[in-house]
Amino acid sequence: MSFEPLKNDTFLRACLRQSTDHTPVWLMRQAGRYLPEYCATRAKAGSFMGLATNVDYATEVTLQPLERYALDASILFSDILTVPDAMGLGLSFAQGEGPKFAHRVRDEAAVNALAVPDMDKLRYVFDAVTSIRRALKGRVPLIGFSGSPWTLACYMVEGGGSDDYRAVKTFMYSRPDLMHRLLQINADSVAAYLNAQIEAGAQAVMIFDSWGGVLADGNFQTFSLAYTRRVLSQLHREHAGVTIPRLVFTKGGGLWLDDMSDLDCHALGLDWTVNLGKARALVGEGPQGKALQGNIDPNVLFASPEQIDVEVARVINSFGRPHQGAGTGASHIFNLGHGISQFTPPENVSALVDAVHRHSKRIRQTGAH
Amino acid sequence: MSFEPLKNDTFLRACLRQSTDHTPVWLMRQAGRYLPEYCATRAKAGSFMGLATNVDYATEVTLQPLERYALDASILFSDILTVPDAMGLGLSFAQGEGPKFAHRVRDEAAVNALAVPDMDKLRYVFDAVTSIRRALKGRVPLIGFSGSPWTLACYMVEGGGSDDYRAVKTFMYSRPDLMHRLLQINADSVAAYLNAQIEAGAQAVMIFDSWGGVLADGNFQTFSLAYTRRVLSQLHREHAGVTIPRLVFTKGGGLWLDDMSDLDCHALGLDWTVNLGKARALVGEGPQGKALQGNIDPNVLFASPEQIDVEVARVINSFGRPHQGAGTGASHIFNLGHGISQFTPPENVSALVDAVHRHSKRIRQTGAH
Repeated sequence: MSFEPLKNDTFLRACLRQSTDHTPVWLMRQAGRYLPEYCATRAKAGSFMGLATNVDYATEVTLQPLERYALDASILFSDILTVPDAMGLGLSFAQGEGPKFAHRVRDEAAVNALAVPDMDKLRYVFDAVTSIRRALKGRVPLIGFSGSPWTLACYMVEGGGSDDYRAVKTFMYSRPDLMHRLLQINADSVAAYLNAQIEAGAQAVMIFDSWGGVLADGNFQTFSLAYTRRVLSQLHREHAGVTIPRLVFTKGGGLWLDDMSDLDCHALGLDWTVNLGKARALVGEGPQGKALQGNIDPNVLFASPEQIDVEVARVINSFGRPHQGAGTGASHIFNLGHGISQFTPPENVSALVDAVHRHSKRIRQTGAH
Repeated sequence: MSFEPLKNDTFLRACLRQSTDHTPVWLMRQAGRYLPEYCATRAKAGSFMGLATNVDYATEVTLQPLERYALDASILFSDILTVPDAMGLGLSFAQGEGPKFAHRVRDEAAVNALAVPDMDKLRYVFDAVTSIRRALKGRVPLIGFSGSPWTLACYMVEGGGSDDYRAVKTFMYSRPDLMHRLLQINADSVAAYLNAQIEAGAQAVMIFDSWGGVLADGNFQTFSLAYTRRVLSQLHREHAGVTIPRLVFTKGGGLWLDDMSDLDCHALGLDWTVNLGKARALVGEGPQGKALQGNIDPNVLFASPEQIDVEVARVINSFGRPHQGAGTGASHIFNLGHGISQFTPPENVSALVDAVHRHSKRIRQTGAH
């Protein structure tokens, strides 16, 4: 496979803590329901899974936000639950509701029946990666992704979303041995899945530990972070001679940045509860430092463009001026602290993206850190 | 008013960081739906508000968990939303659903219409406090409580619960001036409300900042913590010659312990994401130190008694041996990191309470810190 050369490498350079003339920005769930053109494609596809499993539709919606906004990266349009679906759990999305699995994993027999799925069952994802990469024509890099082993386990045990995580935690506290077996299978599956995305054309990969933050201190390290490590240790370091940056985002994980400081990855995602300046001092500098990604509250996008500008400046200033050194500098990738809301006015996203570019150029000239 | 002398002052002593022979334990929402006797009283009362506004029923359910478990404190049975209800917003609870307000606060006119309510409208709460205090006959102390100004504002703007806090955050980001006015009124109302509870017999008061943790760094300090401070500054220091300990619990506030270290209160509540040993080192020692309250995951109560024992020991050991000094020591009040689940098997609560007493006596003899 060969693709057109990359024209905007700001995101990849920031991941590697190399100098950039502005702070790159992309938005979690940037291809989504807040865009009328997304809703139109989704209506054609008939269902969420119809959209995600169709290469042409997945390509179309991945590129939609790039047409509207000066984003510095694109991310594969897919769902975090494709892997357990490929394990045979039967994923579906009812209209207006979250994901549901036909089969839940709640006992020893169900865990014993699980195995790393045949990656051929996920061919539709890898085909979409290649198709999107071609369609991008080198405009911006393409990020591949997966849910973390723990986050997948939450859905597999609960059978869908949850507000108290009672089933998965009862399982974890009652049968830690089974939970560890489940998490090993998930970790090895996620690693194979992300490696296949890299082989298909993904230029960076991100692990979403969306539910790591619901764990107790101690259990986070044992049941989530340890398996994120297991994934990272198996990932391709480079592809076609180019480094593939690895990003990890734990929603609600701000208290555990210390524990993440030696993760074998390039960037850590942060939610809005974290002070970027403090996080930078803790894990964002030096030879083992990480690039930091985040972390504006998505609800800022419901304010006026003027107020969005003020809040963007606060986040940019909170990180401070990036180091303009290679490999051991300090760098920031602007993002939301969570996926964009479906109710977001699309024009407000322009205000945010433009403010990031403007303020981050300003701080490179005048800002001190 | 005079009441019988207190027989078990372990909780109050721990709040004041005085020595105790065991770690006191109580459970947030300990009078609640997991108890069949609570459900029976509630059925008699007809509705949640029927229960909360009837002095005899409120007294009955407050005492129920003390009949089953060797708890070291009781807490007024009431709701955190009584204050905005007294402001005229019209609180109700539909069967099986959360709280709802008939009137929401979403514009300047609605804020202008708000004022500190006449405390006579909350007489049923103060009467319940006195009645419960009498019925306790000095067995354990009685804790009064209120929602924090920010947490009340969340419900007042949203009109009920929320999973994204879109309305209240849109309001905050768009009209910070109005939000500050709303929060001032809430703070002064909460202070008057807690002072009246103290006058009626509450022996400690706790502020529940249940939704402080949804705020972005910076906004937490400005929109939540500042108004908790405003409440604390107005509270009675003592009543009838006895110090009234002040407790503050911010769910999801672990990242901001530093900011809370100079709060004018005696104890900080922590959820299960916080490492108790680290929190103790940060805010739990020295002249300005706080007692720490928490922090086991309520889902531990779904495991077996043996596993509950192991998890309780982990929490007790994580705090370490309390200092046996007066006033400047380090002390721990055992609690859940959140309210007990309605699905909890009642017999498992016995296992937890007994384990707290046993392990905390053990660590006083053998544990080192």
